Amino acid sequence: MKLRFELLQADGAARVARVHLPHGIVETPAFMPVGTYGTVKAMAPPELAALGAQIVLGNTFHLSLRPGADIVALHRDGLHGFMGWQRPILTDSGGFQVFSLATLRQISEQGVRFRSPVDGAEVHMSPEDSMDVQRALQSDVAMAFDDCTAYPASESQARESMERSMRWAVRGHAHYYRDEPPGHLFGIVQGGMHLALRTASLEALTALDWPGMAIGGLAVGEPEEERLRVLEHTLPLMPSDRPRYLMGVGYPHEIVAAVARGVDMFDCVMPTRHARNGHLFTSEGIVNIRNARFQRDTGPLDPACSCSTCRNYSRAYLRHLDRCDEILGVQLGTVHNLHFYLELMRRIRAAIAAGEFAALAARIMAIPRRTAPPVA
Amino acid sequence: MKLRFELLQADGAARVARVHLPHGIVETPAFMPVGTYGTVKAMAPPELAALGAQIVLGNTFHLSLRPGADIVALHRDGLHGFMGWQRPILTDSGGFQVFSLATLRQISEQGVRFRSPVDGAEVHMSPEDSMDVQRALQSDVAMAFDDCTAYPASESQARESMERSMRWAVRGHAHYYRDEPPGHLFGIVQGGMHLALRTASLEALTALDWPGMAIGGLAVGEPEEERLRVLEHTLPLMPSDRPRYLMGVGYPHEIVAAVARGVDMFDCVMPTRHARNGHLFTSEGIVNIRNARFQRDTGPLDPACSCSTCRNYSRAYLRHLDRCDEILGVQLGTVHNLHFYLELMRRIRAAIAAGEFAALAARIMAIPRRTAPPVA
Repeated sequence: MKLRFELLQADGAARVARVHLPHGIVETPAFMPVGTYGTVKAMAPPELAALGAQIVLGNTFHLSLRPGADIVALHRDGLHGFMGWQRPILTDSGGFQVFSLATLRQISEQGVRFRSPVDGAEVHMSPEDSMDVQRALQSDVAMAFDDCTAYPASESQARESMERSMRWAVRGHAHYYRDEPPGHLFGIVQGGMHLALRTASLEALTALDWPGMAIGGLAVGEPEEERLRVLEHTLPLMPSDRPRYLMGVGYPHEIVAAVARGVDMFDCVMPTRHARNGHLFTSEGIVNIRNARFQRDTGPLDPACSCSTCRNYSRAYLRHLDRCDEILGVQLGTVHNLHFYLELMRRIRAAIAAGEFAALAARIMAIPRRTAPPVA
Repeated sequence: MKLRFELLQADGAARVARVHLPHGIVETPAFMPVGTYGTVKAMAPPELAALGAQIVLGNTFHLSLRPGADIVALHRDGLHGFMGWQRPILTDSGGFQVFSLATLRQISEQGVRFRSPVDGAEVHMSPEDSMDVQRALQSDVAMAFDDCTAYPASESQARESMERSMRWAVRGHAHYYRDEPPGHLFGIVQGGMHLALRTASLEALTALDWPGMAIGGLAVGEPEEERLRVLEHTLPLMPSDRPRYLMGVGYPHEIVAAVARGVDMFDCVMPTRHARNGHLFTSEGIVNIRNARFQRDTGPLDPACSCSTCRNYSRAYLRHLDRCDEILGVQLGTVHNLHFYLELMRRIRAAIAAGEFAALAARIMAIPRRTAPPVA
């Protein structure tokens, strides 16, 4: 199955494209809301679709522990039928979570043995296991199973980790494509903050045919300039005729900075997680709706926003829901934050198409990065 | 403001009517979902409207503590604007909650002094205070502030409590109607399980003009036959040309039993609270979705149900969401349970209109009352 990547327009390194996947077309640059356990938290699929989400991300690690890939696979079309989402799905490989969430972890060439954080049971995951799970989930895009390099890492630590990831990528590729797969497998460039290792990782991957490629091992705590240095080194070396996915990024200004350098796909828990904590993205920066200054504020959260939360509810009401731990507060905040991200991507695509990306990027970069100060 | 109560059809004591309220028409027998803090938990108003809810209940006690009636009143149309619900709202008086939730309670003829369960502050609520709050909330139907009789209560305890409620009802009526009010004030019959006291309460109320009347002091732990005895005694004594509201009831079979005796309006936290605990109402009885037997069950929760939860998700998925404490599980369960209740009321109204209420009542009564046994 060949992945069709339809490049529509470019503005500098930024580009607009359409990725043709088994369950539909994804317009890029695209943001993928994260649906860890087969649900984008607090959102039903029709709401996600109404917000304009074209693809969501599912977590192989979490879903393989609960409910188990076998149970998801009982449903028509795998994870699509299980969660009631008929549009495209990308699944991560579980690699990142194995390294960030699992305890008593033992890494061998074969794979990783760890204790399930759910019930303490011993679990083993190899590149082949990850491919089996992702095939069972029937995701449109599966990701290679990688050894995630910690930050910071010395050159030799980063090299050892990257080289293992590359050997695992080869095994995963062979296993995923052993017969007709349900989707496409993306490779992941590793190498930490070491540019020569990024080059080596890319060269190792290029021995195989990957329909898309991701940059992993970023958004792990490194300073922004380190990340941009890695992106500026790596992106021009990556194939330009297929999608480039920057895993786990990020804030709006980080997305814009990456798009400017040629990234097509993003995922991040930020909009959904922030909504659960009452942190809401606005045209004036992030607002903490718990702030007492909103107590008697009958205005909309963001007067510049057209989402249903901003059209129908006051800041006073949103603050009240948050204060009373009402689920509706999470729902309305999630709708707003996802609208903010998906609208940002729509604006990015339109600006690139119009050759005006630099101007939009400047406006996004100018949004205050901290919680907005008290209004007068 | 005169309340228009349009009696359409009767089948025995059961009747179908239309109650014309400032924010719209309510078809009775009606079930009112409970929106304690200005939100029916986990439901946005458009979802409630789509389910066919015509009226919701707001809690005066809770809303007066958080966010405070003054903050709600800053919004257009009071609670309607605050919560984004343009259809009718009934508010309780706070009496029941003062007696069931407040601590360090001191009752005097003037009113009740208690500690706020939110922040421990000393709060006072009198019949006049309750009317002021309900007027500020701009509910379509306000309720008299009453002294809720505990269960069980001796004749003298029940008499003292009922007589205080009746004096408070007179004060509340004068205060609510002192000038043009935003809605209608319903009286509440008290008297515990003592039939003579129920008669006396009704006679005391009849001295004033109430556009509707409620039966209070039931659903407080009494056996079902006690409740039916009180209903059978009291309902025929109540005016038949205005709505009769049975507060806090109940299970489907309890609603059917009360409709059969002439009740028009109901409210209960059951469908929403049960949904949060994974207890879902079905045509075969209440199902506990946490049960392990649903682990691999790809069928719909209730094959006989047409709600979006049953049309789009499997039992295995609903169990998975519950097990992972996913908010979406509460959302989907609440949609289903409220659909069950609102569909029950639609069926009740249709059956009364068709002169077939007895047959429907028999079918509802035959639904198993406990969690359904394991399926084969």
